[in-house]
Amino acid sequence: MANALRNSFKYGCSGLLSQLSLHCRHGRVCASPYAAVQQRNNSSSAKIKVDLDASTGVAVMWMQSPPVNSLSLDFLTEFAISLEKLEMDRSCRGLIITSTLPKVFSAGLDIMDMYGKSPEHCGEFWKAVQEMWLKLYGSNMVTIAAINGSSPAGGCLMSMACDYRIMADNPRYSIGLNETKLGIVAPFWFKDTMVNTVGHRTTEIALELGLLYTSPEALKIGLVDQLVPEEQVLTTATETMTKWLAIPDHARQITKSMMRKQTIDKLLANREADTHNFVSFITKDSIQRSLRMYLEMLKKRKA
Amino acid sequence: MANALRNSFKYGCSGLLSQLSLHCRHGRVCASPYAAVQQRNNSSSAKIKVDLDASTGVAVMWMQSPPVNSLSLDFLTEFAISLEKLEMDRSCRGLIITSTLPKVFSAGLDIMDMYGKSPEHCGEFWKAVQEMWLKLYGSNMVTIAAINGSSPAGGCLMSMACDYRIMADNPRYSIGLNETKLGIVAPFWFKDTMVNTVGHRTTEIALELGLLYTSPEALKIGLVDQLVPEEQVLTTATETMTKWLAIPDHARQITKSMMRKQTIDKLLANREADTHNFVSFITKDSIQRSLRMYLEMLKKRKA
Amino acid sequence: MANALRNSFKYGCSGLLSQLSLHCRHGRVCASPYAAVQQRNNSSSAKIKVDLDASTGVAVMWMQSPPVNSLSLDFLTEFAISLEKLEMDRSCRGLIITSTLPKVFSAGLDIMDMYGKSPEHCGEFWKAVQEMWLKLYGSNMVTIAAINGSSPAGGCLMSMACDYRIMADNPRYSIGLNETKLGIVAPFWFKDTMVNTVGHRTTEIALELGLLYTSPEALKIGLVDQLVPEEQVLTTATETMTKWLAIPDHARQITKSMMRKQTIDKLLANREADTHNFVSFITKDSIQRSLRMYLEMLKKRKA
Repeated sequence: MANALRNSFKYGCSGLLSQLSLHCRHGRVCASPYAAVQQRNNSSSAKIKVDLDASTGVAVMWMQSPPVNSLSLDFLTEFAISLEKLEMDRSCRGLIITSTLPKVFSAGLDIMDMYGKSPEHCGEFWKAVQEMWLKLYGSNMVTIAAINGSSPAGGCLMSMACDYRIMADNPRYSIGLNETKLGIVAPFWFKDTMVNTVGHRTTEIALELGLLYTSPEALKIGLVDQLVPEEQVLTTATETMTKWLAIPDHARQITKSMMRKQTIDKLLANREADTHNFVSFITKDSIQRSLRMYLEMLKKRKA
Repeated sequence: MANALRNSFKYGCSGLLSQLSLHCRHGRVCASPYAAVQQRNNSSSAKIKVDLDASTGVAVMWMQSPPVNSLSLDFLTEFAISLEKLEMDRSCRGLIITSTLPKVFSAGLDIMDMYGKSPEHCGEFWKAVQEMWLKLYGSNMVTIAAINGSSPAGGCLMSMACDYRIMADNPRYSIGLNETKLGIVAPFWFKDTMVNTVGHRTTEIALELGLLYTSPEALKIGLVDQLVPEEQVLTTATETMTKWLAIPDHARQITKSMMRKQTIDKLLANREADTHNFVSFITKDSIQRSLRMYLEMLKKRKA
Repeated sequence: MANALRNSFKYGCSGLLSQLSLHCRHGRVCASPYAAVQQRNNSSSAKIKVDLDASTGVAVMWMQSPPVNSLSLDFLTEFAISLEKLEMDRSCRGLIITSTLPKVFSAGLDIMDMYGKSPEHCGEFWKAVQEMWLKLYGSNMVTIAAINGSSPAGGCLMSMACDYRIMADNPRYSIGLNETKLGIVAPFWFKDTMVNTVGHRTTEIALELGLLYTSPEALKIGLVDQLVPEEQVLTTATETMTKWLAIPDHARQITKSMMRKQTIDKLLANREADTHNFVSFITKDSIQRSLRMYLEMLKKRKA
């Protein structure tokens, strides 16, 4: 994988990778990550801020976990709790997800939750990744990704799980499932979600090459639905939401379920095996060595 | 759904909706709708006229049920009988479906067969809708839709069930499965047919928003195959038919079946449940109330 | 099928068909075609030449069986052996397939292996066609088709089974699954491969009409990935290979398998039935008569 990592830089991997998951993590011991998060006020928690406009029924979820909104176990736990609260709040019909950070929507899964961790930790982490996708892809709310920065790997998955994707029209921002380029493999439900979004052949070539697409390229292949100037991403999301909310909820929800249920059921039926696969892959010596080299390289680049 | 209906006008629903199914229906009592229809000469029946050119083996089916070729139980029964006759006529190899009415191909399912009717009637009606699709999507003939007007909902389904779609190049004509906008839901086999035609993602967004596409938009997403000036729709269909009939019937039929059989078998295996779902949905008080409000609104607009 | 054949010329079938499989075949008796081939040096065998560059790990497979690289039983047997050798050679990571012949990549299945042959021979032949596809579509190597000429029917299948397709930018070269036009039917796994490449609707119309696409048309529908001037096809393939080999083999192979395994497993589960179907179809009197007329017509055109 050392070769792979060198090549990932050589072949145009986003400069964003230099920041990927290199933020400080304050160790915290708690019986359950859920417990720890639940003690905070959701709206003022460290990683995610939620604003619900009661007059429109639209919530905005701000991802605000510097430097790159990595999807750590803590982040994902907060995300799941926030989403579930909104899902059960009958006054909330629509959700816009966006980032408060410059240049990045989300850099994807947090490598620090995969490197040097016990199999138990890796398993917990993976279940949280599954949970994020299951809740978001199957949400009864209208979900719009307001992608105001780069969105590789898990950030791309999160975007694809929404109903609609609006991205900043900036060719320096990229999006895609680039796992292969890092020597790891997107699991079947990442793949299924992408096939549902851009079709079989585009997914095949994207996943085999671990391609990151600039925003214009992403629009062209249908990975995002619309490009607007960066300062208009959120306002366009809000306007688009109005159009979606004009559709009767009940009919739209049944229709959405009809389109997505089969894909969701496939993970539900294989969730244990999928977790087991991830844990046994990521805890391999060779993969751990590669992750260490990758982290060291990122540190050097940062220095 | 009152909101939904207001919004459907607000958000650009076709003006055609103002006419939708607002035609007079002469009550008629008969033991079986089939019996009643069979007594008429097929070629001179009220709702459908069939011209078979023995020299070319091509039949043209003219839909001529004013004002908007609504797919009523009577219409669908005539349609199924006409189609079956042609299917069994070995001299007939190709079928072109078109409309004699101005501005409309077919406005889709007849609301009058869903409003204020007994569960038994609704069930009979739904079986006739299924039968139309099963016979057309699985036809051994080459089937071409000559779409010389708007074609929402069931009209779109009928078009998609053909082998090829030629539409009048007129941006005032629209086509799409817009059920959601009316607060109802396109069943899984409408969805499957659309996925087979335009792919998963386009179907998802089209069905969730109940989108109607202008003819240029429909061409762009692949919902129709070709646009020509309105006066050339039928001649182009005839020319296209010649090209299709140049292919050996046997090889083409096996190939068509290979492409469509799985989708057809899925409805055949779930036909009873699908009928049951429709009946219990459409006879709900809330849905019936919405249909009444919708009809009253249409009457006002017409007046 | 006589009609079909006349029509296939009338409706723009490639001029290449005039050469299709009209090459001399020297009868050869041997206990097993494998045995006969294995006695030759692979690199100097009559039909296929393989050059493996040890420094890059890339092999080029030259198809050199005049006049049109027909996929005969002998050719396919050599192909399978060559491919398996490379697959087991750990120094070989990538494979480029191209043709040494002017104007043609491969003209597809050899009619001489289907005409006037015993059911046993036809069955052996079909298993070799299956084997070619199974090995190529499931190869662990990066496979690139350098399509420097026309590639109808089986030649198109072979191209689609690769990871990437680069075609000469020459509108006189065509590619497609045109079986229907000849009165025969592409089997389900040809269809599945095409659906995976260009989607359901494009496949439906392509297979029902037996369409051959010029290289610009093929690019437009995604049947090939890239067009370059003819003299750059191989160099572009080599450059593209470098990009693919930058991806860690392990991650790419698992990803490729995830994309293709289901399609491969479907043939593996139905291999006997598929062979039986082919044999009983091709040995029918009517089909044999058609093949004879077709061959006679080709001979006349050649004379």
